[in-house]
Amino acid sequence: MTRSIRDQTAIVGIGQTPLVSKGGLPEDELTLACLAISAAIDDAGVSPAEVDGLALFDMEAKREVEVARNLGLGDITFFAEVGYGGGAACGTVGHAAMAVAAGQCDVAVAWRARKRADKRTRVWSQSPKRLDDPDQWTRPAGLLRPVDEIAMLTRRYMHEYGVTREQLANVPLAFRRHANRNPKAAMYGRELDLETYLSARWISEPLCLYDNCLESDGALAVVVTSAERARDLPRKPVYVHAYAQGLPRQHQTMSSFFCEDPLRGPSHAAARRLWANSDFAPKDISCAQIYDAFSPLIPLSLEGYGFCERGEGAAFTEDGGLEWDRGRLPVNTSGGSLSEAYVHGFNHVLEAVRQLRGESTCQVPNASSCLVTSGECVPTSALVLRS
Amino acid sequence: MTRSIRDQTAIVGIGQTPLVSKGGLPEDELTLACLAISAAIDDAGVSPAEVDGLALFDMEAKREVEVARNLGLGDITFFAEVGYGGGAACGTVGHAAMAVAAGQCDVAVAWRARKRADKRTRVWSQSPKRLDDPDQWTRPAGLLRPVDEIAMLTRRYMHEYGVTREQLANVPLAFRRHANRNPKAAMYGRELDLETYLSARWISEPLCLYDNCLESDGALAVVVTSAERARDLPRKPVYVHAYAQGLPRQHQTMSSFFCEDPLRGPSHAAARRLWANSDFAPKDISCAQIYDAFSPLIPLSLEGYGFCERGEGAAFTEDGGLEWDRGRLPVNTSGGSLSEAYVHGFNHVLEAVRQLRGESTCQVPNASSCLVTSGECVPTSALVLRS
Repeated sequence: MTRSIRDQTAIVGIGQTPLVSKGGLPEDELTLACLAISAAIDDAGVSPAEVDGLALFDMEAKREVEVARNLGLGDITFFAEVGYGGGAACGTVGHAAMAVAAGQCDVAVAWRARKRADKRTRVWSQSPKRLDDPDQWTRPAGLLRPVDEIAMLTRRYMHEYGVTREQLANVPLAFRRHANRNPKAAMYGRELDLETYLSARWISEPLCLYDNCLESDGALAVVVTSAERARDLPRKPVYVHAYAQGLPRQHQTMSSFFCEDPLRGPSHAAARRLWANSDFAPKDISCAQIYDAFSPLIPLSLEGYGFCERGEGAAFTEDGGLEWDRGRLPVNTSGGSLSEAYVHGFNHVLEAVRQLRGESTCQVPNASSCLVTSGECVPTSALVLRS
Repeated sequence: MTRSIRDQTAIVGIGQTPLVSKGGLPEDELTLACLAISAAIDDAGVSPAEVDGLALFDMEAKREVEVARNLGLGDITFFAEVGYGGGAACGTVGHAAMAVAAGQCDVAVAWRARKRADKRTRVWSQSPKRLDDPDQWTRPAGLLRPVDEIAMLTRRYMHEYGVTREQLANVPLAFRRHANRNPKAAMYGRELDLETYLSARWISEPLCLYDNCLESDGALAVVVTSAERARDLPRKPVYVHAYAQGLPRQHQTMSSFFCEDPLRGPSHAAARRLWANSDFAPKDISCAQIYDAFSPLIPLSLEGYGFCERGEGAAFTEDGGLEWDRGRLPVNTSGGSLSEAYVHGFNHVLEAVRQLRGESTCQVPNASSCLVTSGECVPTSALVLRS
């Protein structure tokens, strides 16, 4: 076995439920998971009984056994979980691909289902559980929410490289423009301009309302199988070219303020392995779906994955640099977490598949490769997909 | 890439803390994890900074970030968790091996650390969290503890195949004999005979005191790297020949009483994939380390992994069938969970390595292959290791 999963597997099916940011989905979380997975299985043209691999978030409230029994899956011979919420989406898909490539299963499903009203998924906030470990050093100082933690990092980033609010605004403005072409996006039909951005209320200075993602309920899933099997299935295969995870040395989740280089995030660790295992370099990538729970994660990730040098991420966003029809690199072409939905970044995987099938509502002409990333500032993961 | 991890990787280091069943370890759970992993890294002869893969139980209270930062590990590019407690040990080692074989990392660590006084690891019992899902059907009927659930299954097994208590006794008696040669075993120096077994108090009829494992605190770890790298390291490599997980259709964790065939456990699902990916068949295996939280799991697993036919597992244990020096298949040569320690079955992995290095206190002559299994009755996993 060559030590690489390169193009050995493909995403052959995608499925999702509606994604809503203001409650209102009647289904419980298990039902949402089953609906999304069923849709992905149908899209793939396989039978539920053929599914023998499962990859999920460790935050998922309903475990493998519940999903398998309720969907009538076959004997499962691979299952794995990935931690750290926003860092996990690409990791679950990577694990599914790796397991198929290694012969541990033949048809694997990766998914994320989320219903915030289910208390078992509400693990954040100041619960006692979060007050040991490094949280004890930051919670009492007022860093209570994820946005507070990212605001700290953003201050450092702006100070270090002279980044402006106008540059940060390029991120939500580009993604809102994309969402306005995607009828399924939460912000479809709601335009955003720079003036509105600049006059919006702070959530945690220097981050305003529009720098924050849309916490959403819903579920999404993908089906992965071998490249060989994919050739016999109805959908155009989207090959898993490379995958990597990243948890850098000295890391503290969401609060790596005390390490040697706070702006060298998990993306740097993932990127090195990702590109080493890839035939592509950043310059070869057609478009990218980059985790965007908060605006500044986009320039930080562009730097981390090598689309520009350190400190040049903010400039990269200028002059429509992220936009689907004129960008240096079209990014988050469905609207992303800022304007489509926030489901721990799993929607980015599905949009990458749509781009490589030629089915995006912001279709990049001749898109043949797509980078997908999960959360910066937490242990993360990334995929290079290709057609 | 051929779809197999066969002999691509090896376990090159093992480490553990003392394993104690009656409290008394002063270290907290994170410290225990770090001590075991450090010992395994030292045994392997690698540097902590070379470690770039982590595989763990999802029950582990201290996450990858804490372990990595406290041990000074390098940039981690693979991490994965496995659920279901007793079913996870072989899965974590399998994931580590798969990730190295696939080029996702170069040196991976898998571990289990457990300190029951840490409340975050006490997830069992009748907590509200456990009263949804299938537990709602069995908890109110009095199946409160794992032993109650296994007692139900044991009744069915005894009824179906005419298994006797004398046959069940063969399991703890054999393992106690092994423990009496292992100075690190909790039951070292405490002999057990049939009369004592038969007159012991019930824990949950038909399971008596000696059918139950020794809940223990402590930590164990292994280091996995490529077969190529292993050749340059000081310890005799123990190759990961094959691995599989198993979550059978219709499964309910610990309470699969309502499915078509309650005695066809997760081992059957894992075994099919395991042997398909292996050059060995059961008849070729030198010895086995089989998950033994409760005595009847041994005959059930012997059947599941194909060492005998359905219903013949109990007879397999007769006439010293499991004993290190005269058995059909030497099983649990360190004393197992019943007489060495119960740390969710991770000690079985280390004993397999010792057998294949020639370092067991119940050394099987010329041991060249070893089956290791994780828990029956939960989603499970298994390994075939070879020298």
